[in-house]
Amino acid sequence: MPQNASINRRFVLAAHPRGLPQTTDFRLEHTEVPAPHHGQVLLRTLALSLDPYMRNLMDEVGPAYAAAVPLGEPMVGGTVSRVVESRHAQFRPGDLVLANAGWQDYALSDGTDLLPLAGMPQPSYALGALGMPAFTAYVGLLDIGQPRPAETVVVAAATGAVGAMVGQIAKLQGARVVGIAGGREKCGYAVQELGYDACLDRHDPRLPAMLAAACPQGIDVYFENVGGTVFDAVLPLLNIGARVPICGVIAHYNDDGPPTGPDRLPAMMAAALQKRIRLQGFIILDHYADRYEAFRRDMSAWIDAGRIKVREHRVSGLEQAPAAFIDLLQGRNFGKVIVEIAP
Amino acid sequence: MPQNASINRRFVLAAHPRGLPQTTDFRLEHTEVPAPHHGQVLLRTLALSLDPYMRNLMDEVGPAYAAAVPLGEPMVGGTVSRVVESRHAQFRPGDLVLANAGWQDYALSDGTDLLPLAGMPQPSYALGALGMPAFTAYVGLLDIGQPRPAETVVVAAATGAVGAMVGQIAKLQGARVVGIAGGREKCGYAVQELGYDACLDRHDPRLPAMLAAACPQGIDVYFENVGGTVFDAVLPLLNIGARVPICGVIAHYNDDGPPTGPDRLPAMMAAALQKRIRLQGFIILDHYADRYEAFRRDMSAWIDAGRIKVREHRVSGLEQAPAAFIDLLQGRNFGKVIVEIAP
Repeated sequence: MPQNASINRRFVLAAHPRGLPQTTDFRLEHTEVPAPHHGQVLLRTLALSLDPYMRNLMDEVGPAYAAAVPLGEPMVGGTVSRVVESRHAQFRPGDLVLANAGWQDYALSDGTDLLPLAGMPQPSYALGALGMPAFTAYVGLLDIGQPRPAETVVVAAATGAVGAMVGQIAKLQGARVVGIAGGREKCGYAVQELGYDACLDRHDPRLPAMLAAACPQGIDVYFENVGGTVFDAVLPLLNIGARVPICGVIAHYNDDGPPTGPDRLPAMMAAALQKRIRLQGFIILDHYADRYEAFRRDMSAWIDAGRIKVREHRVSGLEQAPAAFIDLLQGRNFGKVIVEIAP
Repeated sequence: MPQNASINRRFVLAAHPRGLPQTTDFRLEHTEVPAPHHGQVLLRTLALSLDPYMRNLMDEVGPAYAAAVPLGEPMVGGTVSRVVESRHAQFRPGDLVLANAGWQDYALSDGTDLLPLAGMPQPSYALGALGMPAFTAYVGLLDIGQPRPAETVVVAAATGAVGAMVGQIAKLQGARVVGIAGGREKCGYAVQELGYDACLDRHDPRLPAMLAAACPQGIDVYFENVGGTVFDAVLPLLNIGARVPICGVIAHYNDDGPPTGPDRLPAMMAAALQKRIRLQGFIILDHYADRYEAFRRDMSAWIDAGRIKVREHRVSGLEQAPAAFIDLLQGRNFGKVIVEIAP
């Protein structure tokens, strides 16, 4: 059934995935468009952000930083939305806002989670280059990774929503930047468009040797956003005093229990000890109060000056969200994934 | 052959251990006592410190922070030594010094690695409570662990040379301290003498549940000095923002290659991410310039005031060093291990 003004299409969580989600783990439902109560606004979703963290919310027990999505409830997600009806003093019909409307056409909000987007030249940037993913890159790299000029920074998923920002911000700090990405096209883009010093194909079985060759001075900062075998290639190259901001471990989000051995933890702990490595996990939600303003100021300036490039991977239609999300978890996207839901 | 004034007994590395060292990995040799050249002193070893890090120096490839002991060369180690002959302007016969004479009766030094011990009421403290092990506890706990009052600190090897200091310093910071130690006698000592709030037997199969019960507010600082199964019990209890100074992983020093699975690394990385945990390895050699003076001042005051208690595990005779070292790696010591070599 196509969307119309009285029907709300929404994807709810139909089942907790076992491993990689399947499209059958989501269920498309059609409900009535809800009516706002006093103090609420009705939002029309224009664009939905898809991000790897959503996978963690699909498990029966969610992560420590956010509530799991209950079975039968709409999938959550950041959106660019338009106010279509307002019973809230601060919002008027037509206002464009950053919202958390989730995987659906319409949602209600009491306004507390809305951020006006008036004046943002490209509203979808609020979901990527000027939003949570880039903010994650900014805080993780600058505050935890702390790259110094001429140090070597390695980032995996190097053309993704977070990784592309990590690499470009690191270049602006004067670091040598080596990316790891899936396939020749992405690697070419990372070097030619994003300015990486090198970018290696994660599918290449020679990755450990190639990474060593690309990092002749070792690795000072490894921005961990994938986990898995990339970490194994990185670990022996980490320098004394290296920093490892841990932003995500996509490679393991779909693990169904601990992977088989060998047990890599002792080697990691021994390396951390001998090389005085600092590994630090962070959740970007913690940092909005302190750092968001600086991020918006810096990043806007960098984008305006053409010093940071933005690439979006656009998918058309809410009905494409599950497949696009499954692709994202497998690295089949090329840039920040945005689902266009309404014009 | 007993030691006499013209014979130097020394233990050299006879073989790289496979797993836990055996006494046959060491060889007792008798050589002539060397004669000091101009600018050197001849040292008589009075007491030898045995410390877990020495295990790492026995492998063919040593750790990043120190050179491996070559086959046939004397085992290294910190000592309290007496100058018996001096051709160095700053030292006189009879001077008591902290030295690195290793596992032997006599050694030469050019003085650069010597620290005078005049005025230290108990010279062996220079190897423990006022030396490297306690300094390791001080820096790791205060600078990396940063416990705040009422936070919960967990330390394994809780009555060992490092652990006993971690726990007692943490108590002085106002933290709740839970120790883990091998056996009832050590646990009783930790609570009754060292002031721990609780101490659990690491051999108890119910350790995970007992640790959870002993840490009703979770764990804010885990001082990692053992690795192995203790870490598994700790990980689920770590609070958001927890700090894990990594000081040693004794449980793995004897691993012959990576242990079999399951692979515990992904769960650790996921926990670090979700709980914003900071894990940081450190090597105490890095910190002497900045922090040793503060440590000596604070620790001397604490010991003098009876606020920190010191327990030494004394072994008599150089010939006991290999067996005592093997015992240490298995946690059979009770306090800082000191080999008494000469009166």
